[in-house]
Amino acid sequence: MMAAMAARDAELDLLGIGNAIVDVLSRADEASLAGWGLEKGTMTLIDAGQAEVLYAATGPGVEVSGGSCANTIAGAASLGARVGYIGKVRDDELGRTFAHDLRAAGVSFRTPAASDGPGTARCLIVVTPDAQRTMGTYLGASAELGPDDVDEALVASAAITYLEGYLWDPPAAKEAFRKAVEIARGAGRRVALTLSDPFCVERHRDEFSELIADGVDVLFANEAELVSLVQAASFDEAVAAVRGRCEVVAVTRSELGSVVITADDVQAVPAAAVEHLIDTTGAGDLYAAGFLHGLTAGRPLPECAWLGAVAAAEVISHFGARPQVSLAELAAAAPRP
Amino acid sequence: MMAAMAARDAELDLLGIGNAIVDVLSRADEASLAGWGLEKGTMTLIDAGQAEVLYAATGPGVEVSGGSCANTIAGAASLGARVGYIGKVRDDELGRTFAHDLRAAGVSFRTPAASDGPGTARCLIVVTPDAQRTMGTYLGASAELGPDDVDEALVASAAITYLEGYLWDPPAAKEAFRKAVEIARGAGRRVALTLSDPFCVERHRDEFSELIADGVDVLFANEAELVSLVQAASFDEAVAAVRGRCEVVAVTRSELGSVVITADDVQAVPAAAVEHLIDTTGAGDLYAAGFLHGLTAGRPLPECAWLGAVAAAEVISHFGARPQVSLAELAAAAPRP
Repeated sequence: MMAAMAARDAELDLLGIGNAIVDVLSRADEASLAGWGLEKGTMTLIDAGQAEVLYAATGPGVEVSGGSCANTIAGAASLGARVGYIGKVRDDELGRTFAHDLRAAGVSFRTPAASDGPGTARCLIVVTPDAQRTMGTYLGASAELGPDDVDEALVASAAITYLEGYLWDPPAAKEAFRKAVEIARGAGRRVALTLSDPFCVERHRDEFSELIADGVDVLFANEAELVSLVQAASFDEAVAAVRGRCEVVAVTRSELGSVVITADDVQAVPAAAVEHLIDTTGAGDLYAAGFLHGLTAGRPLPECAWLGAVAAAEVISHFGARPQVSLAELAAAAPRP
Repeated sequence: MMAAMAARDAELDLLGIGNAIVDVLSRADEASLAGWGLEKGTMTLIDAGQAEVLYAATGPGVEVSGGSCANTIAGAASLGARVGYIGKVRDDELGRTFAHDLRAAGVSFRTPAASDGPGTARCLIVVTPDAQRTMGTYLGASAELGPDDVDEALVASAAITYLEGYLWDPPAAKEAFRKAVEIARGAGRRVALTLSDPFCVERHRDEFSELIADGVDVLFANEAELVSLVQAASFDEAVAAVRGRCEVVAVTRSELGSVVITADDVQAVPAAAVEHLIDTTGAGDLYAAGFLHGLTAGRPLPECAWLGAVAAAEVISHFGARPQVSLAELAAAAPRP
């Protein structure tokens, strides 16, 4: 069934639509998080003023282009996929940085930058000593993404259109999201979605459920997001509840690896070895990159999950959520499962 | 002799004056360097147009505050020193990032940002697979630093004023440099200098020699810079030639460690172990941080060199030239030589 996704006639393997964000990473201990109004391991939306206050409070930073979906797309490019991205930056320094990094990674990115309004989005990411990341996101210009930015021909040309749940937060972006799903389905293409964050699922549970039932072929989630989506009492219960709701559901479980759920089967795939865990930012994003690249290349599902694990292992062994080496070379050299 | 530098009456242990720069790090193979007009392992000055072209040619980047002297000052702060910095940024996004990162590291930084003229300086750093860094620097606003930015009371309050040789490139900064040396000497304080880069030494050899003879107490160099300064045929010859020219000369030799040269003695101190060499950017800067912190804390010279080695080992085990952990904690836990 999944082999159909190889879609050799598509011009793009993968088109991502997401919030275009530059990350500012710094380190802090857990005690600081609560004082800053952040809940460990989650993403909190903040406004421009809160972003200033939080930035002033955090330590020296490292700036790296981010955005969940953009990280996935950059990762898929590094694996050799033909990829494009739709997202909104402002025509400021951070926006130029974001566009440079995406294009330099081999991603087609043509969404026009906003020439007025709020600045390019930034995500203040605090990495605690256990390598977990906690995020405060100022959406800025990324929230200006709207249906007009969704190019019909581009969406129709991609074997899979991949959307992040975070897009459901800004109202215009939600419309863009819906338009993209409609176009992709109309063109006989596939739609993939990541649930993004447990709080994001709480905010939009019913709409996400509806969307998944209607138009999502491939769903990504971590344990907390899946459990929240189906309001289950346990992970096993959640797996049973989601089974068959879309063609494939891939659930990441940190060091426990991932679980690939189809109507017929539930397969567990181990995580790839990580010598030095530095920063978990982007782990889920890069898992999706490997998995989706595998799908569009027509690989069997356990191999898709293995590619996801290899890509995730690279990104959590350094600061920042974009790959720092060629994932294609890394995957070629990695021991098969 | 060196114990005099502990200078308990000083308000600051260390004041740095340097080019205020934000680094943009990316990876590339060696073949690319020549095509971009860069010589491996060195720093090339580029103008705004060349910076645009080079940025467009390089891969996805990571932005980290840099500037040789500022890296040293941030490192010394991380070791627990009381430190200040003088350098010029523009009032733009990169300038705000630079100031944030320095202040967040515990550095007193009050030089007013320029409100017009060129943007904040950036250094495009290309890291080759052997972890060596090669740099193209657009000086931008940092070249606007001038004598008026050198606060007499501040310089007089610091036990050591530390200057980077790179300051000799922009004319106004050179005047600022000279003014700082004069104030420090007049106040009975010490002056430290790093030679920065072999090309920088070639550009300014005679003036550097004069300055060292007249007013430098502590000199930092790597092998190539030292050999170029004294135009020696070998490293041993260079060591003999520089001996006694200032109170102490500390020469870094990468994995061979460092050599500490005084009028009476030449002592070799091994490098600290590095598990994973990722990016040598900032190795010399952080060596100077450890060494200078040791000096102002009244430690014996071999211990100063060991502190330098520990600080350098941290910074070369990740991307970027600023420490990512507390160097004070790292040094406390590190095995003594």
